[in-house]
Amino acid sequence: MAKELTTRSENYSQWYQDLVIKADLAENSAVRGCMVIKPYGYAIWEKMQAELDRMFKETGHVNAYFPLFIPKSFFSKEAAHVEGFAKECAVVTHYRLKNDTETGGVVVDPEAKLEEELIIRPTSETIIWNTYRNWIHSYRDLPLLINQWANVVRWEMRTRLFLRTAEFLWQEGHTAHATKEEAIAETEKILDVYATFAEKFMAMPVIKGIKSANERFAGAVETYSIEALMQDGKALQSGTSHFLGQNFAKAFDVTFSSKEGKLEYVWATSWGVSTRLMGALVMAHSDDYGLVLPPKLAPFQVIIVPIYQKEEQLVLISEKVKEISGKLKANGISVKFDDNDNKKPGWKFAEYELKGVPVRLAMGPRDLQNGTVEVARRDTLEKQVVEIDGIENYIEQLLADIQSNIYTKALKFREESTIKVDTWDEFKEALKKGGFILAHWDGSSETEEKIKAETKATIRCLPLEFEPEEGKCVYSGQPSNRRVLFALAY
Amino acid sequence: MAKELTTRSENYSQWYQDLVIKADLAENSAVRGCMVIKPYGYAIWEKMQAELDRMFKETGHVNAYFPLFIPKSFFSKEAAHVEGFAKECAVVTHYRLKNDTETGGVVVDPEAKLEEELIIRPTSETIIWNTYRNWIHSYRDLPLLINQWANVVRWEMRTRLFLRTAEFLWQEGHTAHATKEEAIAETEKILDVYATFAEKFMAMPVIKGIKSANERFAGAVETYSIEALMQDGKALQSGTSHFLGQNFAKAFDVTFSSKEGKLEYVWATSWGVSTRLMGALVMAHSDDYGLVLPPKLAPFQVIIVPIYQKEEQLVLISEKVKEISGKLKANGISVKFDDNDNKKPGWKFAEYELKGVPVRLAMGPRDLQNGTVEVARRDTLEKQVVEIDGIENYIEQLLADIQSNIYTKALKFREESTIKVDTWDEFKEALKKGGFILAHWDGSSETEEKIKAETKATIRCLPLEFEPEEGKCVYSGQPSNRRVLFALAY
Repeated sequence: MAKELTTRSENYSQWYQDLVIKADLAENSAVRGCMVIKPYGYAIWEKMQAELDRMFKETGHVNAYFPLFIPKSFFSKEAAHVEGFAKECAVVTHYRLKNDTETGGVVVDPEAKLEEELIIRPTSETIIWNTYRNWIHSYRDLPLLINQWANVVRWEMRTRLFLRTAEFLWQEGHTAHATKEEAIAETEKILDVYATFAEKFMAMPVIKGIKSANERFAGAVETYSIEALMQDGKALQSGTSHFLGQNFAKAFDVTFSSKEGKLEYVWATSWGVSTRLMGALVMAHSDDYGLVLPPKLAPFQVIIVPIYQKEEQLVLISEKVKEISGKLKANGISVKFDDNDNKKPGWKFAEYELKGVPVRLAMGPRDLQNGTVEVARRDTLEKQVVEIDGIENYIEQLLADIQSNIYTKALKFREESTIKVDTWDEFKEALKKGGFILAHWDGSSETEEKIKAETKATIRCLPLEFEPEEGKCVYSGQPSNRRVLFALAY
Repeated sequence: MAKELTTRSENYSQWYQDLVIKADLAENSAVRGCMVIKPYGYAIWEKMQAELDRMFKETGHVNAYFPLFIPKSFFSKEAAHVEGFAKECAVVTHYRLKNDTETGGVVVDPEAKLEEELIIRPTSETIIWNTYRNWIHSYRDLPLLINQWANVVRWEMRTRLFLRTAEFLWQEGHTAHATKEEAIAETEKILDVYATFAEKFMAMPVIKGIKSANERFAGAVETYSIEALMQDGKALQSGTSHFLGQNFAKAFDVTFSSKEGKLEYVWATSWGVSTRLMGALVMAHSDDYGLVLPPKLAPFQVIIVPIYQKEEQLVLISEKVKEISGKLKANGISVKFDDNDNKKPGWKFAEYELKGVPVRLAMGPRDLQNGTVEVARRDTLEKQVVEIDGIENYIEQLLADIQSNIYTKALKFREESTIKVDTWDEFKEALKKGGFILAHWDGSSETEEKIKAETKATIRCLPLEFEPEEGKCVYSGQPSNRRVLFALAY
């Protein structure tokens, strides 16, 4: 192989780190906890963005942009938000540098101190609801269905590329509604958009559910999430959609006159997915050879590698490749031809396996003679010799097969890794293996905290789809009428 | 009119401010100098982004993302950059808040002080070249053609929506090359991309040129720009492309081994356009009734307003409109039907004029009978009754006409507002009227500074297209062999 990866069984965490770096997705920057998203990684993120953006617009949302900075005082306005929200924020205190005559460098100008400190947004509910106060007067101004694509900062102490970084990219939707019912419907609609995106585009099965009170967003009445299972048996929360009730409207005094002419507080939702999805994508499908990308998100879907010894052969192969590329592109398939003469085919094969390109075509002089090409699919690593005639339809079908096969494989893994347990011993035993655990819970935060303290496992969600079932809490033995989803999580 | 605008002749600056706010493009936020870009404004910016992004990719560039924060020490590494670049930067000094037990609010935790302050990027050359050091080793790693879409912060004291804000959105390209020639070619190629975008999409004629030493970007060897003329006779720099020589490579020690095996410093360019273009777009074309948007950047190109008295009429009109909309959409035209029953047609007419929608269709019962529709174009405010049969082709042609008419009008205005002057009195006289002034200049920074001090006029650029001509500096009387472009500027 071109670049050695740690294997998953050796050290899953190191495998992930190696893979993100060696596949050129991202790297750590000179600034603690902040990453550089490299072009190959960013190209995947752009595809995610484009698709999500299309889905948001199809469901009636528009984009806008709100300030990076939030006045410190705004954080104190919503009680639960100030109490519960992580305080690890980047704080701007000064607005000017000046030349340092001693060192020739720059220093912060002590005279340029802000009257009120500004916080780099860790999330934008406060500044956005402060703005909505002026935008909403009547029921005719509602609903307001707004999304923004932005960077946010949370000063995490332990960071991991994509999964947890001080700065990350995300979208945050912030909607305003006249009624509670409409706001809840919006929260659920977006959860569906996220689940559809995860399953149809990322080929990653997810479980939709409601968070327990402990895991709820600070300021939300109800937090919904989609939860995915990674190959190491740990869960990854991949998107959240919050029903905020009237909490932010009350905190920022956002009222409207209803159809009946009454002054009422506005109902709110907020929802987001972030570059964390990149981490989920990597961990859900990839193997010891590198990334396995679903065709719908791959920066390019087909790589073509020429096999030749003489320059004349390359000329003939290149001509044929041009013809093939043209046909593939006409069918909406993205193609790259790597005729770099500095690397051997074997190196290229390994490189594009590492990068997760869904399909590789290799063409040598014999293929040219026979009118064939060698087709290798990344997900199963199978190879086949295929006639060039009609290749565009063959590849189109193959890409669809790969997309669905990756999903099916992940779904099978999740099903095999989901277990129902009924006793505390079974629970602890199951945790050793990892995976999703369906168990009864007595519904109390106290029990949830004790379970977390003893095992690090958390309630990922109360799945929306479930069968009511009488039982006893796996920890306290108290009665319960449904199972909830536990797991160790990222 | 629905919302009163100050007229341009009354107070151009107020007209601009009114228009940006009343047309729902943007507004000032609770954070000093930072704006909220509203959905209608953001939709225009998205169209600009999409087109520019397409042009960058067509010319071989890829996107990536670098950190928001830059360690303070990085600013000291490139001598001209530290000396010349504006020091008005937002400085992060702390990374945590804590609850304030006295007030119940939050305060900055004094114990969470950063060892080295972080600067919110005002531009990213330093952090990017610090990153490139690890990416570039051999000539085979070059060129590196990377762009990023990002927010940046410059703590401007006097801000105006879009034109000068503390935080703004932009793209910044940062490329690395093996040779000086290649880097210069890149700088010029991007200038062409910018000029093409301005002229073909914004319908805004621009002059391409090179900046004088005084106006050069701090750290650049040469700064190129496109300069546009606003309706009040002031110039607006609309995009810059910098040839950075080896300055940043030397400051951050970025070398490569050449084909010949020699270790050499890398050559650099950087280039950017920002949400400032939104300000240019507004000021270049709009009138006392509101925005005039070029069809290629309008969030929607056609608005359809029904004229009716009875509900049954609306039903019939709506059916017909559905048919028309379908045809227009099939021709790639974006359409909105405003059947809001809360507003009168007159109000809607004014509203969509304010918002600059290129074409308005109005349909009443008589139109329905006659198989016609009233078509109004925003640029000239002309109205015409047109047969519905074949309307899609008529509108398609009309949109193309509007796009070209707006450009032609702006070009004519610029030509009429460009004057050659040869004496200092003429120069001062011309400035009173505003517009572009072509005058001889002795080439010295001293003269340029004196002219600026006396008149506020600056050299906008040394146009790339010019006729060599012997003359005398308009200020010093020293010999000169070409005219340069002066103006008052935003």
